[in-house]
Amino acid sequence: MTDTVDSRAVMEAIEWRREQVNDAIPENLPVVEPKKLYEASRYLLDAGGKRLRPTILLLAAESIADVPTRSEPYREFPTAEGPIDMMSAAVSIEIIQSFTLIHDDIMDDDDMRRGVPAVHREFDLSTAILAGDTLYAKAFENMLETGSTGDRSVRALSELATTCTQICEGQSMDIEFETVEAVTTEDYLEMVELKTAVLYAAAASIPAILMGEDDYVDPLYQYGLNIGRGFQIQDDLLDLTTPSEKLGKQRGSDLVENKRTIITVHARHQGVDVESLVPTDDVEAVDEATIDDAVAELEDAGSIDFARETAEGLIQDGKENLEVLPDNEARDLLEGIADFLIEREY
Amino acid sequence: MTDTVDSRAVMEAIEWRREQVNDAIPENLPVVEPKKLYEASRYLLDAGGKRLRPTILLLAAESIADVPTRSEPYREFPTAEGPIDMMSAAVSIEIIQSFTLIHDDIMDDDDMRRGVPAVHREFDLSTAILAGDTLYAKAFENMLETGSTGDRSVRALSELATTCTQICEGQSMDIEFETVEAVTTEDYLEMVELKTAVLYAAAASIPAILMGEDDYVDPLYQYGLNIGRGFQIQDDLLDLTTPSEKLGKQRGSDLVENKRTIITVHARHQGVDVESLVPTDDVEAVDEATIDDAVAELEDAGSIDFARETAEGLIQDGKENLEVLPDNEARDLLEGIADFLIEREY
Repeated sequence: MTDTVDSRAVMEAIEWRREQVNDAIPENLPVVEPKKLYEASRYLLDAGGKRLRPTILLLAAESIADVPTRSEPYREFPTAEGPIDMMSAAVSIEIIQSFTLIHDDIMDDDDMRRGVPAVHREFDLSTAILAGDTLYAKAFENMLETGSTGDRSVRALSELATTCTQICEGQSMDIEFETVEAVTTEDYLEMVELKTAVLYAAAASIPAILMGEDDYVDPLYQYGLNIGRGFQIQDDLLDLTTPSEKLGKQRGSDLVENKRTIITVHARHQGVDVESLVPTDDVEAVDEATIDDAVAELEDAGSIDFARETAEGLIQDGKENLEVLPDNEARDLLEGIADFLIEREY
Repeated sequence: MTDTVDSRAVMEAIEWRREQVNDAIPENLPVVEPKKLYEASRYLLDAGGKRLRPTILLLAAESIADVPTRSEPYREFPTAEGPIDMMSAAVSIEIIQSFTLIHDDIMDDDDMRRGVPAVHREFDLSTAILAGDTLYAKAFENMLETGSTGDRSVRALSELATTCTQICEGQSMDIEFETVEAVTTEDYLEMVELKTAVLYAAAASIPAILMGEDDYVDPLYQYGLNIGRGFQIQDDLLDLTTPSEKLGKQRGSDLVENKRTIITVHARHQGVDVESLVPTDDVEAVDEATIDDAVAELEDAGSIDFARETAEGLIQDGKENLEVLPDNEARDLLEGIADFLIEREY
């Protein structure tokens, strides 16, 4: 399979849908009383984001419906049983993503997110917990408001609830791994599947569920699972390879903070003393030369190539999962997004 | 309306259903991998609780179906469209309750719950946040597994999601009230409605939704709303009137910690200097005589009578909401539970 759209068309497709999603968020999640709670709930959503997951959901719907992209209104998207509000499903997925970021930032004690203070820093711990909990409920409310049939809505909701459970399991594994020596690359990839990839899988497959197109549900789920894992590995790689100013944070901060990544898990199994690669635990105190040396050692161990090849393999698998879809522009763009996930530089 | 069951029969009805719910919890929420996450999720559920909300749900189902109580299996409860798993709905409600307790204890920095350490004390902050988030998803999963029709399940889910949103709003108001002088008893009751009563309302009305008995949905919702508010006011009263050893914590601890209750909100509007009633902020340091004096002053201000009368009025209204139900033992027990909520001493 070769790309039939160039990366510029992919960027435009993402941009255009991002705008649509940005317009929909205040409609689907208005700031009402008590204001502080809803302002905190909207804070990260309003701070930005590429809206990749809702974009994938909307493109999957367009490919399944086999309509020219951007030809149908997302609020009244055509299905055999009449129009449904596909945008509500897209916003639901973005809301789940935002809820997990708010709670993860508390757990990881992270101060910044999307260039602004984390919600528990901008507001306080209680408000951040509560904002996440509110978003959780709002995601379910939004997924229930598509106007799809009862049975399909139940299936979509069930998919969403299972996804949330798995995200919690993945986050729990991620925390647990911090204190476990013997983590394998397989363990790590299982954690990534749960923590990150299942939400891509839900985003890609839920339009097929809502439209009653059962044959597409599983392949699209697998597409999401594959590219979601590829996305996370690329995130791990970018931390080491992208200059700090482009990354928006210190390059190599995962090494400084001893965060486990596919690269460090692999390197440890190659006998690299990962903890001593960067002696300091203080992101402020580290210098570029130390990071350069660390990256060189990880390269020598073959760990960076291993990560890159794993990501590329997953993206390739994800693109092949799309072959069952009608051959149309939306499918080409879904392939293009798969490539984008590992070609992006930040 | 007069009671047709005595309080002993009510206690037995609660006890018997509590056992059923206790047996169902491990079935509907098994401890799987990652174990620590699920053990933390189950921790408070396993620590006890009266299971009042699921008991109300199960009794409402029995009254609507107009069957002798305990005559039908909750796992295959009869409806016009075939049997449904009413116990899954009951467990769902109890799981929501447990999730809110875990997150509330973090926000309120409470150390103990149900005689055991709060989840964030027994485990840690991250695990407690994540356990709550997991329960949240599991509650939705359980509510989706009743086997009711798609349309009814969607309505029940929608009710559950809205309820969760409102609980968050109520908790947000509760936190906000701590720093606001001008809270009225109406404000306070609105907060209680959102934070506490809507979950009783969901418990009482969801069986009618799942059984397709639309005429009963609204009256049962109102029943839950009324008795839920009565329950919370009684909680406020018990803190002042029940001896510490029976209460399981220091009597008057709400006064010591300057927690707003219907009683203190009323007293403040009567000109009582509520903050100075108990000079210390340390629950360990307070003596019984100080609490006695404070209670006497609140009694003189009419605040305790006001709370008692408000609770009694709400319970009376709640019982009247039941009049539309078939006249059967289950309905009598629902009335009895309403009375129990304000007659209980702990």
